[in-house]
This record gives sequence, C-alpha cells and structure tokens, in this order.
Amino acid sequence: MLNLHAPTDPRWLSLALGDLDAILLDHAHCEKKAASTALSLVFKYPEHEAFVLPLSRLAREELAHFELVIDHLHRRGLKFERQKPSPYAGRLMEAVRPNEPDRLLDTLLCCALIEARSCERMKLLAEHLEDAELAALYRGLLASEARHHMLFVDLARLVQPEDTVRDRLAALAVHESAILADAPSVPRMHN
Amino acid sequence: MLNLHAPTDPRWLSLALGDLDAILLDHAHCEKKAASTALSLVFKYPEHEAFVLPLSRLAREELAHFELVIDHLHRRGLKFERQKPSPYAGRLMEAVRPNEPDRLLDTLLCCALIEARSCERMKLLAEHLEDAELAALYRGLLASEARHHMLFVDLARLVQPEDTVRDRLAALAVHESAILADAPSVPRMHN
Repeated sequence: MLNLHAPTDPRWLSLALGDLDAILLDHAHCEKKAASTALSLVFKYPEHEAFVLPLSRLAREELAHFELVIDHLHRRGLKFERQKPSPYAGRLMEAVRPNEPDRLLDTLLCCALIEARSCERMKLLAEHLEDAELAALYRGLLASEARHHMLFVDLARLVQPEDTVRDRLAALAVHESAILADAPSVPRMHN
Repeated sequence: MLNLHAPTDPRWLSLALGDLDAILLDHAHCEKKAASTALSLVFKYPEHEAFVLPLSRLAREELAHFELVIDHLHRRGLKFERQKPSPYAGRLMEAVRPNEPDRLLDTLLCCALIEARSCERMKLLAEHLEDAELAALYRGLLASEARHHMLFVDLARLVQPEDTVRDRLAALAVHESAILADAPSVPRMHN
C-alpha cells in the first residue's frame, strides 16, 4: 500500500533507538518542512483548484503534529533548535524533472514517498520503543502518514493518467531506496 | 489599540463594496500569505523558542481562514486563482532594516500593522456590507485579526525593550499610512 521499493534496513532502527532525542528533533523539523512544502504547492499551482483545500488542510495537520512533537521535546527537557538535516529529501527531489507537467507529477510523488517512508518507520518505532509515551505518539501518527501518502498519489492521478502515475511512482521508489542505502549513519528520521 | 497612524480613507470602502469578488479573492491570498510568513519566521528564527508554538498556531489559524474564504468564493460561483497582488506588503517590508536584531523587530511590527489594517477594514466591511453572509464572515474574522496584531507586538516585546518597540511601531505606522495614501485604485484588501 505504501509503494516503497525496499523495507528499512534494521540498522536504522538501532541507530534511531540509540538517539531518540535526535530523532524527535528531526521529526519536528520534518513536520514543519512538510507543512511548508504543502503550502508552497498551493502558491505554485493555484490553477489546480482541486489541490487547494486538501493541501491547506494537510499543512494544518502537519503543523498540529509539529506542535505535538515540540510538546514531547519539552517533556523530555529538550528544546526545538537548529539541526543538520538529512540529505534525504534534497537528494530525492533531485529526481524531479524540470519541465511541466513532469515537474508537478514528480514533486507530488516524491512527497508521497516521503510520507510512505515516515509511515513505515513510525510503525517500527511504535513497535520497538520502550518509552510508552513516545510509542503512543508514533502509533497515533503513522495512520496520518499513510493517509498523506495516499493524498499525494490521488492528487497525482488528477493531473496524469493512472498508468503514468504508477510507472513513475515505481521508478521514484527505486531512487528513494537507493538514497537510503547510501545514507550517512546519523540518527535522522530518513537517514 | 490597533496602533494605526491614520484611519482608512472612505474611498477605499466604496472601491471595495464595488468589487467584492476581487476583495474576497485578494483576502484569500492574504490569509495564505499570512500563514506562509508566520511559518517562515519559525524557519528563520528557531533560536527564539518562545515564538515557535504561537507562530505555528497562528499559521494554522490563517490557513483555516484561507479555507473559509475559499468556501465563500465557491458559494459565489468563483474560484481561487492567481490575482495581481497589492504592492502594500512589499512596500511596507521595504522599511525592514537589514541587520539583526532590527530585522526581526521590524518584520514582527510590519506583520502587526498588516493585521491591524486588516482588522480595521474588516470592521468597515462588516458594518457596511449588504450581503449578510459576507458581513457575518468579516464580523467573525475581525477579532482574530486584532488578536494577531497583539501577538506580533507581544513577540516583539520578547526581543526588544518596551520603549524601543513602541517608538519603532509608531514610526512604521506612519510609513504604513503613507503607503496607503499613495496606493493604486484597484480593489484589494490593502490598497
């Protein structure tokens, strides 16, 4: 259902469980970035009116999750602060073709894959975390990530034929898995 | 309470009432831009942790208002689309000094003045609109705008002394009124 090419390497889970503070801070940054990306799509593509309300609602939900993660940071005595991001999203977006309508299709499908990978990893965290509060946080969020994945795929289907979407999503999923196989060993949601 | 230097010229109200479709579309764009500006402040100033949650909540509220205005556009048989923006916000922000901490102070106070002017004008619309649905929309929103104005002033007070904030706000309010006195006669929320 998540359209991922390869499952997460078990080493990621060890790395994440070994530095939950870093994962949680990165997660906060990811939610903020997701809100910003959804909003930027409304700015760039106002002519796709079917996108406007779903993406605005998505941005609001990402911001609500951002605030929720900040609350968990505070409960752990941490604060929200700058952090060197994972190269993942930037490298993923390098596959976006420059000309329309490819550009829009690829952007939507890259967003879909980021949400899918978040969902898969939040499920791993929910299943393996010993900290009950954090496990509950991730159990609560992973369904939203799956829903966001489907939203981006559905929006792509509004602008391109079904088989074009399916083929491009499969190709981008291969690219996404290759980026993760080559990612630095730093604890981040998408390393 | 709104810290405006001069009230709106009555000619603005005539212009606005004469083309409510254009005002409503511009209003939708303004709410989206306000959400984007609030979010950009979280990206630029993560070290001001006291800003993070209030600005994220503000961005969510602006997006909820954006969706509400879109709903009113749809009820009038209109759609959300590109529109030549007013030069107001861009000209206002020209007064932002380039170096910190002036830059942050000025940005916050310009945001405060935009919210104040929106509040003043939404009150005018609420009082003079014959369309009961639209009058109710603006009556419902103007209190939020006043609250947002105060939020930006309060955030400014977290980073600069009270008298510095007061003096700079008064100076920027003079600039804001001068921009409006010189604005093009095109129906926009802030022309």
